[in-house]
Amino acid sequence: MNVEAPIERRRGGRAARQAMRAAPIPDAKRPVRGGLESGRYQPLTQTEIEKVHHAALDVLETIGLCDAIPSCIEVVTAAGGHVDPNGRLMFPRALVEDTIAKAARGFTLHAQDPRHDMEPWGTKTYFGTAGAAVHMVDAVTGEYRDSTLRDLYDLARLVDAMDHVHFFQRMIVPRDMVEPDAMDINTCYAAIMGTKKHVGTSWVLPEHLESCFEMLHAIAGSEEAWRERPFVSMSSCFVVPPLKFAEDACKVLEVGVRGGMPILLLAAGQAGATSPAALAGALVQEVAEVLAGLVYVNAIKPGAPAIFGTWPFVSDLRTGAMSGGSGEQALLMSGCAQMAHYYDLTGGVCAGMADSKIPDAQAGYEKGYNHALVGNSPANLVYESAGMHASLLGACMESVIIDNESIGATLRTIRGIEVTEDSLSVEAIRAACLHGPGHFLGHPQTLELMESEYVYPVVGDRDSPKEWVERGSTSIVQKARAEKERLLSSHFPDHVATEIDDRIRERLDIQLPREHMRPGN
Amino acid sequence: MNVEAPIERRRGGRAARQAMRAAPIPDAKRPVRGGLESGRYQPLTQTEIEKVHHAALDVLETIGLCDAIPSCIEVVTAAGGHVDPNGRLMFPRALVEDTIAKAARGFTLHAQDPRHDMEPWGTKTYFGTAGAAVHMVDAVTGEYRDSTLRDLYDLARLVDAMDHVHFFQRMIVPRDMVEPDAMDINTCYAAIMGTKKHVGTSWVLPEHLESCFEMLHAIAGSEEAWRERPFVSMSSCFVVPPLKFAEDACKVLEVGVRGGMPILLLAAGQAGATSPAALAGALVQEVAEVLAGLVYVNAIKPGAPAIFGTWPFVSDLRTGAMSGGSGEQALLMSGCAQMAHYYDLTGGVCAGMADSKIPDAQAGYEKGYNHALVGNSPANLVYESAGMHASLLGACMESVIIDNESIGATLRTIRGIEVTEDSLSVEAIRAACLHGPGHFLGHPQTLELMESEYVYPVVGDRDSPKEWVERGSTSIVQKARAEKERLLSSHFPDHVATEIDDRIRERLDIQLPREHMRPGN
Repeated sequence: MNVEAPIERRRGGRAARQAMRAAPIPDAKRPVRGGLESGRYQPLTQTEIEKVHHAALDVLETIGLCDAIPSCIEVVTAAGGHVDPNGRLMFPRALVEDTIAKAARGFTLHAQDPRHDMEPWGTKTYFGTAGAAVHMVDAVTGEYRDSTLRDLYDLARLVDAMDHVHFFQRMIVPRDMVEPDAMDINTCYAAIMGTKKHVGTSWVLPEHLESCFEMLHAIAGSEEAWRERPFVSMSSCFVVPPLKFAEDACKVLEVGVRGGMPILLLAAGQAGATSPAALAGALVQEVAEVLAGLVYVNAIKPGAPAIFGTWPFVSDLRTGAMSGGSGEQALLMSGCAQMAHYYDLTGGVCAGMADSKIPDAQAGYEKGYNHALVGNSPANLVYESAGMHASLLGACMESVIIDNESIGATLRTIRGIEVTEDSLSVEAIRAACLHGPGHFLGHPQTLELMESEYVYPVVGDRDSPKEWVERGSTSIVQKARAEKERLLSSHFPDHVATEIDDRIRERLDIQLPREHMRPGN
Repeated sequence: MNVEAPIERRRGGRAARQAMRAAPIPDAKRPVRGGLESGRYQPLTQTEIEKVHHAALDVLETIGLCDAIPSCIEVVTAAGGHVDPNGRLMFPRALVEDTIAKAARGFTLHAQDPRHDMEPWGTKTYFGTAGAAVHMVDAVTGEYRDSTLRDLYDLARLVDAMDHVHFFQRMIVPRDMVEPDAMDINTCYAAIMGTKKHVGTSWVLPEHLESCFEMLHAIAGSEEAWRERPFVSMSSCFVVPPLKFAEDACKVLEVGVRGGMPILLLAAGQAGATSPAALAGALVQEVAEVLAGLVYVNAIKPGAPAIFGTWPFVSDLRTGAMSGGSGEQALLMSGCAQMAHYYDLTGGVCAGMADSKIPDAQAGYEKGYNHALVGNSPANLVYESAGMHASLLGACMESVIIDNESIGATLRTIRGIEVTEDSLSVEAIRAACLHGPGHFLGHPQTLELMESEYVYPVVGDRDSPKEWVERGSTSIVQKARAEKERLLSSHFPDHVATEIDDRIRERLDIQLPREHMRPGN
């Protein structure tokens, strides 16, 4: 009757298995890593992809975008665009198609530590953060407070320590940085000092980016070294949906492109509010907007690296509020990943936003199904995948650690089921049934595969109810809090030499105190 | 900078949208329902499916199963099987292939209320419960206590009220029923009185099932009426992996098949413990075992309805304990769904088990990614999808309500993105940008689609942080508790006439007091 209940304890091979588990897993044998080939989930058919593509070209050719800045109009018209009588910048089909054909593809996203370099093309998938939350969430009390620069640095450090989070785009706005230039410069500084992984961030005005280039060149060693391995990309909200250019963002974008910085071309309409309520229509508008950005970038500098950043968000149409945790969200982002893949461009989408304000079961399932589906679509870069709540209004440190588990499990599903003569295991079954102990616990195949075939959680709990009660009946939030405290008190990437940091601090108004950047702070 | 943050409030059309939302949604316009066509997630290629198939046939032909009971040997050898010198029952390839060709397909799983009938074939997908948990979990305190008959009845009532849970298989063992016959009979009674949806349960001994047939015939009106619309299926653990028949379960199965009851042929090995650690090998063994069951059922009664119930579970190989919430679990179940689909048989797999002991964020993400991937595989019946914790050792009422949300979102992803001339929305985009208000909130398309394109949560929270704090900073567990109390005090299916219930209570030892079965209990 009770065969469905688990086997809690078994004899045979347990001591050997536990001994193996005590040793760290060598990199090559790890069950999952960034850059696994994905794409086994495909919500759109090839015909549907082509229909979305043609509709997007129609939108660009016949509706175009308004509010282009003069420098944008200049380069895009030189490339083959034109301005219509209403002042809208129009993108003829041939221009867009030529751009797609010639755009940069197969470019590495570098990290300060080359071990974390990413190759986000084809169907290779990486997970990272993003966001511009204005609050930090206390995982235990649910309190929302203003986010600070130190939070940003600490979030970067946590991400640096997460096995399954492969890049760090800034998650919060440091609200203690009152002046926009201080905000931009310190955001960039705190992010790149907090992690050796690839960083993404954004700038309000082009001057702020110019200042940051000094910092980036100093850390790289020279401008040439930076241009060879740019380890920071720009999250550019160059468009305000529907189909309107954002003036300041475009100015910043131009400086970034010329400075050799990869650009995440981000169109973030909300279906039913700033883009159509029909999911297919939301896709069409996002694709059109990002294609316009792609033309713009390539008109500034042919072949400049750009990420196809279609981020169609969902509205709860009862209130107009955003719903980043919905199932519709998973569909939209997966469909966008297919569009970027169709163009053979590096695609950046989102998954793992939660509507829930706190890391409760709701946040869990919202993140779980979004991670799983978007991760298994042909997405290259999955943003917003860790730490976000309240549809991006809040960030939570414990959630970074919790979400790392959901992403790790998702990566395992992306890896899939290897089917080989060995893995089919007919001889292992024969041995166990005909000549063996009637189980597989001590079988050589089991011992060999226990590290490489299975992902084990860090804070996820697999104890039996009895053991769990004996160990204090902890929720995952409590375990994540302990892990956060351990990491924040011990994990300091500390990868930039003091003399370089001195130089940066001499020239720029860095407001993150040095004493926060070492143990005992 | 802050474009990634949500739009919290918008003018335009809000009053109209809220008025529409106040009206109930007619069934035909509901955004999701049971039986949506699925299959956009396919972890195995066609070649890999065929390799698993051939390996399973090898296992059946050359290893076979041990411990077959005489009546099983009799019917299977009469059909073409044979017993090898070691006493193992062997299934030649031709016998298995013939069985697959002739087995029942396209049979309805009936419900007491025909509105809940299921047509689980092709790629149509339904979600339901299952399990044999021995504990009930208090969602707030985390306390584990023995499960009771009344819990079972209450769980059935909750499932009856859930929009996205389409059938009820018994989730717990009523531990207050000490005698096996009382347990079996009262389990069946409590389940079928608690819900008008299709019910699954199981029996320890054939006599218990014979007694229950009296009850089922009485409720159906006659034996003929029962056989025409059998509304209860048998969850049969006819095999103890690896490849050993379970004597009592086989005896019960034979009575069920002859009594016209659909059989869920359940093989539930644990990878690395009772089946191979290699995921592909775990698939092979499960498929072989269930194919053996299929031969057995068809040898008893050709064309008898049987569900291809491959339930390969995952072990945490560090301890041997089951891990139902892992990513590996989602892969295995999705692969099994593909195997049943390959055979064009009704497939029953699991998704939504959690290792977490309580409905916390861990339970959420474990259920979320399992629902999403298994739901989008070509699974027909997804068992264990609501309410289960501690890898099936515990059941939780609040979790039924919480998991209903995750399943609802998953159903929306299964429905997919409709791509039509209208939904591509080029004209809606043109109108909004060139002639309209520059947004889509009041657009006729938005008003038309807000009910049919989007799923809205019942207990999932989409308030802004400010509203959420004003409303008491509740977690989803607190909201689910309130909803549970509301439903348990008000929702009594009450679909069996008192005189029929009287008749059942005269003949069988029913221990669920009548006063528990009406409001005010």
